[in-house]
Amino acid sequence: MASRRPLLRLFELSRIQSRLNNPSCRRTLSSFSASSEASQLTPLARYLGVTALSLLIATPLFYKTAVDEPLMLDALSLAERDQQTKRAEEITNASPMRLRMEKFIKEQQVEIVRALEAIDGTKFRVDEWQRKEGGGGITCVLQEGKVFEKAGVGVSAVYGTLPKAAILKMRANHKNLVNGANEIPESIEFFAAGLSLICHPRNPMAPTIHLNYRYFETANPDGSSGAWWFGGGSDLTPNYLFEEDAILFHKSLKDTCDAHNKEFYPKFKKWCDEYFYNKHRRESRGIGGIFFDDLDESTADKESLFAFIQESLKSFVPTYTTIMNRRKDMPFNEKEKEWQQIRRGRYVEFNLVHDRGTAFGLNTPGPRVESILMSMPLTATWKYMYEPEPGSREEKLEEVLRNPKEWV
Amino acid sequence: MASRRPLLRLFELSRIQSRLNNPSCRRTLSSFSASSEASQLTPLARYLGVTALSLLIATPLFYKTAVDEPLMLDALSLAERDQQTKRAEEITNASPMRLRMEKFIKEQQVEIVRALEAIDGTKFRVDEWQRKEGGGGITCVLQEGKVFEKAGVGVSAVYGTLPKAAILKMRANHKNLVNGANEIPESIEFFAAGLSLICHPRNPMAPTIHLNYRYFETANPDGSSGAWWFGGGSDLTPNYLFEEDAILFHKSLKDTCDAHNKEFYPKFKKWCDEYFYNKHRRESRGIGGIFFDDLDESTADKESLFAFIQESLKSFVPTYTTIMNRRKDMPFNEKEKEWQQIRRGRYVEFNLVHDRGTAFGLNTPGPRVESILMSMPLTATWKYMYEPEPGSREEKLEEVLRNPKEWV
Repeated sequence: MASRRPLLRLFELSRIQSRLNNPSCRRTLSSFSASSEASQLTPLARYLGVTALSLLIATPLFYKTAVDEPLMLDALSLAERDQQTKRAEEITNASPMRLRMEKFIKEQQVEIVRALEAIDGTKFRVDEWQRKEGGGGITCVLQEGKVFEKAGVGVSAVYGTLPKAAILKMRANHKNLVNGANEIPESIEFFAAGLSLICHPRNPMAPTIHLNYRYFETANPDGSSGAWWFGGGSDLTPNYLFEEDAILFHKSLKDTCDAHNKEFYPKFKKWCDEYFYNKHRRESRGIGGIFFDDLDESTADKESLFAFIQESLKSFVPTYTTIMNRRKDMPFNEKEKEWQQIRRGRYVEFNLVHDRGTAFGLNTPGPRVESILMSMPLTATWKYMYEPEPGSREEKLEEVLRNPKEWV
Repeated sequence: MASRRPLLRLFELSRIQSRLNNPSCRRTLSSFSASSEASQLTPLARYLGVTALSLLIATPLFYKTAVDEPLMLDALSLAERDQQTKRAEEITNASPMRLRMEKFIKEQQVEIVRALEAIDGTKFRVDEWQRKEGGGGITCVLQEGKVFEKAGVGVSAVYGTLPKAAILKMRANHKNLVNGANEIPESIEFFAAGLSLICHPRNPMAPTIHLNYRYFETANPDGSSGAWWFGGGSDLTPNYLFEEDAILFHKSLKDTCDAHNKEFYPKFKKWCDEYFYNKHRRESRGIGGIFFDDLDESTADKESLFAFIQESLKSFVPTYTTIMNRRKDMPFNEKEKEWQQIRRGRYVEFNLVHDRGTAFGLNTPGPRVESILMSMPLTATWKYMYEPEPGSREEKLEEVLRNPKEWV
């Protein structure tokens, strides 16, 4: 089997940031390779068309997106046009949303990595990777730090082509996908970009946090933007319940939501409770947050939604820093550490059994497994028939996981 | 949601054994409850009809098998008839295969638990459980022992009813399912029994082992046996490769296979390599063994196949005891323990992402999760971008996992 492992290079974070600020030294994206494997894309079509899902850490769902035909010299691909734009000019508010989103999440990755390094006192490892099939990303991981067992912040921005089967399935949710054309085209170019983050702290009193914000766009044959939508969310997974943390976390998300649309928070909070549900355990993964997908012009204009995404992502650092400062140095005993490890096991169960993004990524040919499974905790435990003592703090957490609460 | 958690009781192993030998004091099986949820059984139908799968530890796939109609007093169910037989007489070679298989695996559970207790010096915990919907099992777990991090030996014997949709799908593989009837019946009663076992030793030089042997049978409307088949297999998962262990393990399986059919070992060895493949890692879970399903009259008569199943299961204790005596007290260092924990992570990945039996069990309403996830190691580790050193013993193991070998 030919290796599909992406090229990996280690970069200093500062080098990446300097490149973000200097278009002339940005690396060129790898060109697409010709492929006749479009028929294998049916799962992608099902995935993109049917489910409200997480793009996850390495946008693994876009690994299998080689173009159907060799590129013609007189017709530049979306990726090539964007590459030309990035070389020629600064990204501004007038630039295509693709480039603005990519720039924004890469800047945020730098900000977030800096903030987490400040909390931990340990540097992240930075891997930049490219797919042979097109696109790439940057995966930053801090492992066995002073405060974090493991923390990962990944961005990806990939280009690809949706085959007809995928287009037909996605059309139901996104009318603009074929832009009123009489005939469904054989393929459509797309762009997808997202930032994903996960932090597993050492101290069992400190909660695990996860977030993901993403943007998807298709191109019309004339090069203009076709369908587009945003997705994302953030959720908190404590081992021990501190109500003030739960309230702070949810209030921060609610405030951001409310500033844009009063219907967002209740809707996205419910969506989150439903998505991050460990069905076989009959309990939630954590205490929720927000989760949403398919936010397009039927919800609000692109500019407003981008503003909402930006503010949501920017609220991570202050909120989580506050929570970590409260919890990271709290005393704990062996029994509490054991409980944390058992909760880590439940986290693994959710991610590997129920999370549609992870499952899809791992089942797609040639995934960058290390980026997808960046979400795994460093360590986890499974104890047969472990049950919290009645009236204990462990039981109190389970109670909240079984009956999601309204925190604000 | 109404609780479907099965009743649990702690039993002494000796008490269970005394009951096996004394039909008069066997417990009665819980009667079936009426249900109109048959329409939810489509995944069961797909599962049973399409895949070659493991019945797994707690036969979770039979949790969702309540009958469609309340039982009529003048028509005893298969379970009730078997219950009457068990109360009235000893199980002999003339008894129905259902009762012989159930008796055999329960006896073997006692033998195996004794052998593992002798290796470890620690007693197993024994939980007997019943499903509200019918049937039950015995789960034996040794946790945090001297030699084993975790060892589990589970048996289950359950009765249920296949709805029409499941019958239609299973008919392709099993012609006798409807026994030449012109019309497909609305439902068919079935029986399923199996023994599953997993051992995760502490010492990284000692291999994890897994096995499962099972029997499935349907009933004709007149009470006679309809379709039936055996399935099962055993596979070894070392952290460090000891060729003499691999050869001993495979030779023991090959000898048992060869005594019955010279085609069994090569066929079942290949099936095992294909089934226990961690696709996203592009490596096998371990060094294989044998795996098979759907062994019915098209392969051999019932008596011969039962003899094959019996000898395969009985070969476990001498083979694994020999391997454990070689490895359990070997010296090891911290780095080797870490590698074991990383391999445990891969084991978790296989079981939760790819194992069809586990996935089905966890996604079925009301599973006994603790019995299904008895297969989880006590602890596991995920390290981002961990790579064995070139030329190391860790790399040598990976080489064998990527390129399955012929051991005998």
